[in-house]
Amino acid sequence: MSKKRVRYVWIPIIISLLAVPIGFYYVNWSKGGEGAGLYSHAWIPDKVFAYWNPEKFYDPVDSVVGVFEGEQCVTCHEAVTPGIVNDWRASGHSKPANNKQPVYCSDCHGSDHKKLHLPSPEVCGSCHNTQHTQFKDERRYGFPSHALAMERALDAKHFADKPKAEVTACLQCHSVATKCDSCHTRHRFSAAEARRPEACLTCHSGPPHPDDETYFASAHGKRYLAEGNTWDWSKPLRKGNYPVPTCAYCHMDNGKHQVADKSIWKFGIKEVNPLTSGNKVKRDKWVAMCSDCHEADWSRQRLTEMDAERKGAWKKLYAAEDILRDLRRKDRLYPAAGERPPYPNDLVDSIWPRERIGFFDGQASAFYNVSSIERDYFEMWYFHNLGAYKGAAHGDIETIKKGHDGMDKSLATILKKAGAINKLTEKELELNGRRSDPGKLWFSGEYTEFNQENN
Amino acid sequence: MSKKRVRYVWIPIIISLLAVPIGFYYVNWSKGGEGAGLYSHAWIPDKVFAYWNPEKFYDPVDSVVGVFEGEQCVTCHEAVTPGIVNDWRASGHSKPANNKQPVYCSDCHGSDHKKLHLPSPEVCGSCHNTQHTQFKDERRYGFPSHALAMERALDAKHFADKPKAEVTACLQCHSVATKCDSCHTRHRFSAAEARRPEACLTCHSGPPHPDDETYFASAHGKRYLAEGNTWDWSKPLRKGNYPVPTCAYCHMDNGKHQVADKSIWKFGIKEVNPLTSGNKVKRDKWVAMCSDCHEADWSRQRLTEMDAERKGAWKKLYAAEDILRDLRRKDRLYPAAGERPPYPNDLVDSIWPRERIGFFDGQASAFYNVSSIERDYFEMWYFHNLGAYKGAAHGDIETIKKGHDGMDKSLATILKKAGAINKLTEKELELNGRRSDPGKLWFSGEYTEFNQENN
Amino acid sequence: MSKKRVRYVWIPIIISLLAVPIGFYYVNWSKGGEGAGLYSHAWIPDKVFAYWNPEKFYDPVDSVVGVFEGEQCVTCHEAVTPGIVNDWRASGHSKPANNKQPVYCSDCHGSDHKKLHLPSPEVCGSCHNTQHTQFKDERRYGFPSHALAMERALDAKHFADKPKAEVTACLQCHSVATKCDSCHTRHRFSAAEARRPEACLTCHSGPPHPDDETYFASAHGKRYLAEGNTWDWSKPLRKGNYPVPTCAYCHMDNGKHQVADKSIWKFGIKEVNPLTSGNKVKRDKWVAMCSDCHEADWSRQRLTEMDAERKGAWKKLYAAEDILRDLRRKDRLYPAAGERPPYPNDLVDSIWPRERIGFFDGQASAFYNVSSIERDYFEMWYFHNLGAYKGAAHGDIETIKKGHDGMDKSLATILKKAGAINKLTEKELELNGRRSDPGKLWFSGEYTEFNQENN
Repeated sequence: MSKKRVRYVWIPIIISLLAVPIGFYYVNWSKGGEGAGLYSHAWIPDKVFAYWNPEKFYDPVDSVVGVFEGEQCVTCHEAVTPGIVNDWRASGHSKPANNKQPVYCSDCHGSDHKKLHLPSPEVCGSCHNTQHTQFKDERRYGFPSHALAMERALDAKHFADKPKAEVTACLQCHSVATKCDSCHTRHRFSAAEARRPEACLTCHSGPPHPDDETYFASAHGKRYLAEGNTWDWSKPLRKGNYPVPTCAYCHMDNGKHQVADKSIWKFGIKEVNPLTSGNKVKRDKWVAMCSDCHEADWSRQRLTEMDAERKGAWKKLYAAEDILRDLRRKDRLYPAAGERPPYPNDLVDSIWPRERIGFFDGQASAFYNVSSIERDYFEMWYFHNLGAYKGAAHGDIETIKKGHDGMDKSLATILKKAGAINKLTEKELELNGRRSDPGKLWFSGEYTEFNQENN
Repeated sequence: MSKKRVRYVWIPIIISLLAVPIGFYYVNWSKGGEGAGLYSHAWIPDKVFAYWNPEKFYDPVDSVVGVFEGEQCVTCHEAVTPGIVNDWRASGHSKPANNKQPVYCSDCHGSDHKKLHLPSPEVCGSCHNTQHTQFKDERRYGFPSHALAMERALDAKHFADKPKAEVTACLQCHSVATKCDSCHTRHRFSAAEARRPEACLTCHSGPPHPDDETYFASAHGKRYLAEGNTWDWSKPLRKGNYPVPTCAYCHMDNGKHQVADKSIWKFGIKEVNPLTSGNKVKRDKWVAMCSDCHEADWSRQRLTEMDAERKGAWKKLYAAEDILRDLRRKDRLYPAAGERPPYPNDLVDSIWPRERIGFFDGQASAFYNVSSIERDYFEMWYFHNLGAYKGAAHGDIETIKKGHDGMDKSLATILKKAGAINKLTEKELELNGRRSDPGKLWFSGEYTEFNQENN
Repeated sequence: MSKKRVRYVWIPIIISLLAVPIGFYYVNWSKGGEGAGLYSHAWIPDKVFAYWNPEKFYDPVDSVVGVFEGEQCVTCHEAVTPGIVNDWRASGHSKPANNKQPVYCSDCHGSDHKKLHLPSPEVCGSCHNTQHTQFKDERRYGFPSHALAMERALDAKHFADKPKAEVTACLQCHSVATKCDSCHTRHRFSAAEARRPEACLTCHSGPPHPDDETYFASAHGKRYLAEGNTWDWSKPLRKGNYPVPTCAYCHMDNGKHQVADKSIWKFGIKEVNPLTSGNKVKRDKWVAMCSDCHEADWSRQRLTEMDAERKGAWKKLYAAEDILRDLRRKDRLYPAAGERPPYPNDLVDSIWPRERIGFFDGQASAFYNVSSIERDYFEMWYFHNLGAYKGAAHGDIETIKKGHDGMDKSLATILKKAGAINKLTEKELELNGRRSDPGKLWFSGEYTEFNQENN
């Protein structure tokens, strides 16, 4: 090796030595603003956020002064907030088994009324250590995950971009990562409540994750609806204890507070190989789960059906992506990425604007600020595809049909629009030598300014 | 002042003296036909209407002759209509407290079988005076209101315009103004029933007022679904009596039968100032209502979130209205108002046809008989906007998202269509000196004729 | 008559003598493949089909060897599949009335574990003969019908055409013809369960048959939701036994297992004359059914409202069909039937391709593989029209409104598209003397190939 060459070796080393700490410093700095997440300098959460992520944002009310303990809190709040006192009285906290001491308000919220706090998962975990450890353990399995729900959301550029009222709506559910009463309603904190599907379905509903709709439409859900009120919900989530499964029965078997270890298709957001050795282990777990009532063959075949549904869905999605990629290659997307305002907080997007085609190009952030045909594709992916997946996973055939119907229609629309775009562009090029100015999309103008002012 | 000028003063005075009584006479006359409402000369209700507004339209069956009282009615109807007799037996009417006399069929329906009537609110009010007075009191607060539901509907031109079967569907719920069993199913007339959300949600459901969908999707609704069957529904609607609120718990606190005095945003139909002194009083009432379980700060912030949602929604709606107004100004809406059939019963519309842009131009009547882009705007306002509002009001984040998603998409569609309209019109003007004939829309032809014949 | 003429008489006779047996042979042959239905040579069902039509496709598991009877089965399955054993223990089979012998696993499934079968309706009918006979009796009334659900589906070309995962979804419900546990969940086989609406609504839900949505949105459904849990479901479905009707109460009065004899409008799939003498008999049956609680006049008027709704719906549908027929006549549908791939299994379609306009042209098979405007029409018919019908039938006004709103919008879209097609075609003919090549629709390309490979 020549001396000269050896000297060049230092160049990448020096760049790395500079770039890595700069990168760390930048990410650190970016999270260090008054707001939250990677865009915390750009994004100040609304006040209500104090209740979604109390550890970071809650300020206690200062209307009451004094230090109170145990029954003192209860005495006063019985008149002020009777609902939560009633709930606490009905809870295990007020009447613990084995002659233990009751868990009083002050035990979780503190005693000094001017310094009260809302309990974080850590506070709950100080007694419920097993559950809290299992819950945190979900982080290992990557996103989507309850434990990562808040931080991953706050690091997504469309969360810092969209109008606050819309984003706060999202974060109400994503707050599952930063408080325990998403599933166990305060102040009863009932395990029985969380075993029932309703506990999960407050969040797990709506077009991109119709767990609510698909469970209740399934044969399992229908039987729950008809007779669930007569079941003994104090029973633990163990084999044979319930006539049909609920959300928790399958996804939190034996009460395990980590929900990620049987997930094969991961919410349907991208194509996976369902037959890796890891996924084969998961498949066996599902077959065992269904064995309360179903033959192993039946269960395996239902999983295979789901794989077939997924494969069909992705064929359709890829067909749509191909059309969009072709338009991008020919620079025929109107307005092209460079003709729209870049994501306000996205440096890369302002330097190298890209259409959002496919998972790795960032379709997850394509809620708005995209061309009409990209939006069609986004909806195909986000609503129809994710919906169809949930239908397949929960045995709701109408939602499978509805999702595939939506995908078929989106694909037809995309092809039709692409045809029109190509025809028109060719005609324009022929006549004028250039394509016409697409004009401004809706995200410029009064609404967008309002949006930017209020973000 | 010259004598001549003084003489001219008489001209407007004389015109007023003539016009005001003529106007009164006209409105009076217009309501005096066989039908109902302002268009009663043009519109004869279907027969089933006898049951929606019985005081005005019910004719008793004449198959049975005789005068019957008390137990006599019951004896026969036990065999003929056992369902309603069972319900009556389970009601307070059959077994009143304090040794009072039972309220028999004949007490409300009359005794002469050929002259039976269905009881109007006044009949019920003869015993239940407090509730009836409160109910009528809602009229003071203006529309929307239960007490005005029927008459305001019948004064709307699209009610006289649309096919009868569709309008009858609307009026089934609007009949809440003219009978009491919309909420208290006959013949049990149970207060406990009306405390449960289902009593309200028979009507309060569907795209433009998804109270059903948004309540049951909220954390409140989910807890009701999971455990509401175990609650004691005989309890009055008082602070601390129920673990989570139902419709009536919040909107009819303490059993008050007037539902309008806490309403700030009025169904989301137009923008209001949520911070007037009157609305500040209402906000305080809401905060007090939520205090069973929630901190005042939390409640205030949720109201602020709702204001932000509303402000965002109206920004989008105004952006769409601006586009439509611009097209109207340039006479580029195809077909323009003058190129469509006028509302059959609307004299003003036939003399001075106007596009229906915005609340005061009459978008509320823009269900049909409008251009494609006006319809997009109508749907944006009627489905997406009103839906998003209910999501915000009831704490159902998915419906907020769905509504705003719908508005975003409508706005994009409207802008895209407006762009195409402008481009095409300019090209046509350039080539032909005039824009081309838009042709007839769907509301001409066989269906419209059918519609007109059957109305 | 001349001799020559008489001789010609033999020509049609000979053709018939040849054609009829050839036809019989062909249909027989076509059903004789490995698959099922008319296309059984072209279509091999997925494995999971073993559970939808077990008599034809189920192969027993061979992991366990031996002959077991009665309690022996239970002993082992208590550990292996505790859910179904629990259900059996709760069933009448395990504790029959009148000191009869219990019905054990082996009585229905057989004893030799390598030759187990899943019970067909015939197996159940060997004890429950009345119900089975009534169920089979539905075949007389033609399609739609539970008893014909499977075979008619398998004879439809789009079932042999569509991707397997989508079709399997359909057939999960259509399997109601080939097994009894669609309504009586195995292994409790409860009559009480099947009296509740949930038993029916596992299948009867979703856009083209929203029985679920419309029942629960109706006043009947709302009362069931509020208090159904307190009713005594062991009571038979007889007059006066239930406060409001459920699906079975009206459609299976007195427990009759044939559901077709009161059906007037037959799912809304085509226009009927609701006033034939046969339908008048059915109307009287409905009026009698409603007489638990409703006056005969009221019930008749609701039926009349439904007729009006249907008449209005068909006016709209016919208006749309006229537009499409006009385009077909002028050969302006792009792509025309001959420009698309024919239905793979449809010989007639490949020789004489036809657009799918109206019931008799085969719109029922127009799920895909059609032009954009035909698809609009299909959706108008399949989703909006069928949905509106169910709204009218079950008293859910919002679904009536939604359906008619959808039909109005579809009709407007169809007219708009037809206008654009006509205008463009005329311009093209003027300029080029021929219309341009429509290009390939989405059903050619990777997805379609995938589809064909996997079917």
